[in-house]
Amino acid sequence: MNRKLKIVKIGGNVINDQQELASFLKDFSDMDTLKILVHGGGKRATALSATLGLETKMVGGRRVTDEASLEIVTMVYAGLLNKNIVAKLQANNCNAIGLTGADANMIRAHKRIVKDIDYGFVGDVDTIEKETIELLLNNKIVPVFSAITHDKNGQLLNTNADTIASELAKGLSSLFDVELIYCFEKKGVLMDIEDDDSVIEEIDREKYERLKEDQIIAEGMLPKLENCFESLENGVKKVIIGNPELIRHSGIKHTSLTL
Amino acid sequence: MNRKLKIVKIGGNVINDQQELASFLKDFSDMDTLKILVHGGGKRATALSATLGLETKMVGGRRVTDEASLEIVTMVYAGLLNKNIVAKLQANNCNAIGLTGADANMIRAHKRIVKDIDYGFVGDVDTIEKETIELLLNNKIVPVFSAITHDKNGQLLNTNADTIASELAKGLSSLFDVELIYCFEKKGVLMDIEDDDSVIEEIDREKYERLKEDQIIAEGMLPKLENCFESLENGVKKVIIGNPELIRHSGIKHTSLTL
Repeated sequence: MNRKLKIVKIGGNVINDQQELASFLKDFSDMDTLKILVHGGGKRATALSATLGLETKMVGGRRVTDEASLEIVTMVYAGLLNKNIVAKLQANNCNAIGLTGADANMIRAHKRIVKDIDYGFVGDVDTIEKETIELLLNNKIVPVFSAITHDKNGQLLNTNADTIASELAKGLSSLFDVELIYCFEKKGVLMDIEDDDSVIEEIDREKYERLKEDQIIAEGMLPKLENCFESLENGVKKVIIGNPELIRHSGIKHTSLTL
Repeated sequence: MNRKLKIVKIGGNVINDQQELASFLKDFSDMDTLKILVHGGGKRATALSATLGLETKMVGGRRVTDEASLEIVTMVYAGLLNKNIVAKLQANNCNAIGLTGADANMIRAHKRIVKDIDYGFVGDVDTIEKETIELLLNNKIVPVFSAITHDKNGQLLNTNADTIASELAKGLSSLFDVELIYCFEKKGVLMDIEDDDSVIEEIDREKYERLKEDQIIAEGMLPKLENCFESLENGVKKVIIGNPELIRHSGIKHTSLTL
């Protein structure tokens, strides 16, 4: 049996609320296990773009990343948010290190091939440098990844944070028993988007297809769940979706994914 | 005898010129030794501040860092510049990792005590986590530090890049034979600021005091040289100042500091 590793992904809503972020980072620091944090931060990037008078283009919930947008997400994700999160984890005695995929070549990607839509400088992940990540974990260092990768030819690439979390989970599943935890503003996948208590506690592939057909699951939740199932199909032991509180109280309602 | 470690510091002028930066990073990648890169980037931060309509306050060549300025330097130094440098080094097969002092608590500082001037969120360095830096170096990972530290209580701090280079050099001198190389736009310390060939090839403490008295050395060069001598007095084997070309051709004119 391998050692346990928990990979936690937090989204923009947790990051934007200073109090909620502080409380989450305290709970994350208290987790007594090998762990990795992955964060997004799209809202803050959108806000900075607006201040700089740049328009943010989104297609299907994904940011179209031209050169100016790439500079902004690199500043906001890898600089401002990542380093503030690291500093706060350090204050909680969690020995965090802030990373992008470019750092020690930990996540290599390629610029997304243009089919119908040109997403610009957006990366699809190719490889995870699992030995380097293991080296950090073995030395009680906690990796904190922002949603930036590179192509190993000098180009940084904007990469969806959910995808980074699931690629890390898959890549590290040969070395660890990986549990992947997606935290967001809801308690889980909901039957009724208006009712926060209508959590669907278990979803397998079959149920997913039915929920998709019935349009109960739609939009941003679709790629998130696709990531979840792909992770499970590639060696990840457990995938759950829920509120950030989940990492403190594993008993609270959430959604578990199974194959 | 300890292993050799070269610590190279580059300033804003190298970073702002894309071609010069690319050529420097190629040379740095080719250096066949344990190495660390430290970079500033003040000009780019000043430019972003101006775009955002924020005023940059400087006192004695040092940036006064209020909360808004700290956000900007964190975005520009730790995000934009640091990660682009890392991606370019990776393209040259140099296994770089981009860092601030907050990452794995590698450089801890305290907010500068207010005497005559309140510099705001500016850090004075207390400790270097030399074992963690050694761990990276032993694993053929090349640390690239931007000019940000933290206080271990959750606060990031803007910290002079020359100082970071000399503090790293001093802190690591018990583990390595450290050579500290300051690269800037001139070939070295000049007798005549108008004549780029008037390099003073050797400066010791006594000569430094005379040059200071005669006002041949002034302004920004004074804290730089103070850092140099302090490094030499604290175990650093060699300190040189010169043009970035120096790391390719050690034969070209430069300034060597001796005690």
